Amino acid sequence: NHVVLCGYGRNGNQALKKLRQYKKEVVVIEHDKEKWEALQDDDILFIKGDATKDEVLKEANIENASHLISALDEDTQNLFIVLSAKQMNNQLKIICRASTEANYKKMKLAGADNVILPEKVGGDHLASLVVTPDLIDFFDKLSISDGDTHNVRELKFNVLCPDDNEKSINELEKFNKTGCKIIGYKDKGNKFSVNPESDFILKKGSSVIIIGNSKQMQNLRANFELKD
Amino acid sequence: NHVVLCGYGRNGNQALKKLRQYKKEVVVIEHDKEKWEALQDDDILFIKGDATKDEVLKEANIENASHLISALDEDTQNLFIVLSAKQMNNQLKIICRASTEANYKKMKLAGADNVILPEKVGGDHLASLVVTPDLIDFFDKLSISDGDTHNVRELKFNVLCPDDNEKSINELEKFNKTGCKIIGYKDKGNKFSVNPESDFILKKGSSVIIIGNSKQMQNLRANFELKD
Ligand SMILES: [Ca+2]
Ligand SMILES: [Ca+2]
Repeated sequence: NHVVLCGYGRNGNQALKKLRQYKKEVVVIEHDKEKWEALQDDDILFIKGDATKDEVLKEANIENASHLISALDEDTQNLFIVLSAKQMNNQLKIICRASTEANYKKMKLAGADNVILPEKVGGDHLASLVVTPDLIDFFDKLSISDGDTHNVRELKFNVLCPDDNEKSINELEKFNKTGCKIIGYKDKGNKFSVNPESDFILKKGSSVIIIGNSKQMQNLRANFELKD
Repeated sequence: NHVVLCGYGRNGNQALKKLRQYKKEVVVIEHDKEKWEALQDDDILFIKGDATKDEVLKEANIENASHLISALDEDTQNLFIVLSAKQMNNQLKIICRASTEANYKKMKLAGADNVILPEKVGGDHLASLVVTPDLIDFFDKLSISDGDTHNVRELKFNVLCPDDNEKSINELEKFNKTGCKIIGYKDKGNKFSVNPESDFILKKGSSVIIIGNSKQMQNLRANFELKD
């Protein structure tokens, strides 16, 4: 149930920092000798090798990993890794970087669940600081200020309403006792709405997005017997 | 009250897309002839020139701009622009990209309000898809699914409680009628907490982070006479 991280460049480096902050088990694969020292110094579990080779992915125990992040600079290499990893473990969630929109599509076709264009994410962030600064600020604070790794999470209708009866948010007695709040709604066609009113009726096949602090999320896990 | 965007590279391109989505007035400054055609084709207001020159910034009416985004590839040029722009308009909010942590600090010293390291933001995003996927998903949906540009915003105590009396969230009658919800709290020392309980007492000097859909945010603006 670990994360395999291919490439300890600037993206990989920052990704690792965040993964460790959330106490994830990570195995890094890095081919470049110059980066080995920094990895050793930081007590990071890593494999000296080329992630485009099947035996190296196997050494990282890809068959039992939950996630792969392919963050090499070369799109061709990332594409190759996505394809290989998908073959070796089709349950794997695959996240990959790409440099161009054209390659974005190829990565998706190869089996990546999410493809990140760093230049695009960066540009988006620059503009967000103009148009939605409070949201950016809130988002940054969420991930550092509270011990819980899930201050926001999605919950499916059948978890929230195990009796399978459609009801309004007001009527979710067990949920409302947790102190968590519903801040978004996704209908069965994945149409999203922000902060539904308290008399809004939740439909079968939908899911809700909820927010809560550590204590409230703990209540939620206990009341609904969630594993994580 | 416009945004001056220096550089129409990959970051700048994506930043512009987002700014336009939020109907911001933007003036782009671009020195590279090869990019002029794309700018012309897309009906973008732009200046053919070098943003490190004061007269070019003046031509972009920097004195009356609300924001500057400096998104050139060269850190030395971004730094120069930050310094120049700050001198010409000290009310300007300055957002700038940098390639290295070392330069991050220099940009801040030069007067940038926010400095973005695209590689870092990209790496962070890669990891967030592992550790907080629901949050990322929610965040992406917020900015596209609803007409309102502010689904999340910060509100200061003195706006929320014009009578200046400290009270619990439950007691915020006028606010609670808007349908918006309080999902975060920042005390006067900027200590942040997630989703305070309804009996939580708001203190002077604090602020709250709220969420709402278009209609709820409209109620908020009306009830509290907010301009935007
Ligand atoms: Ca957190
Ligand atoms: Ca929105």
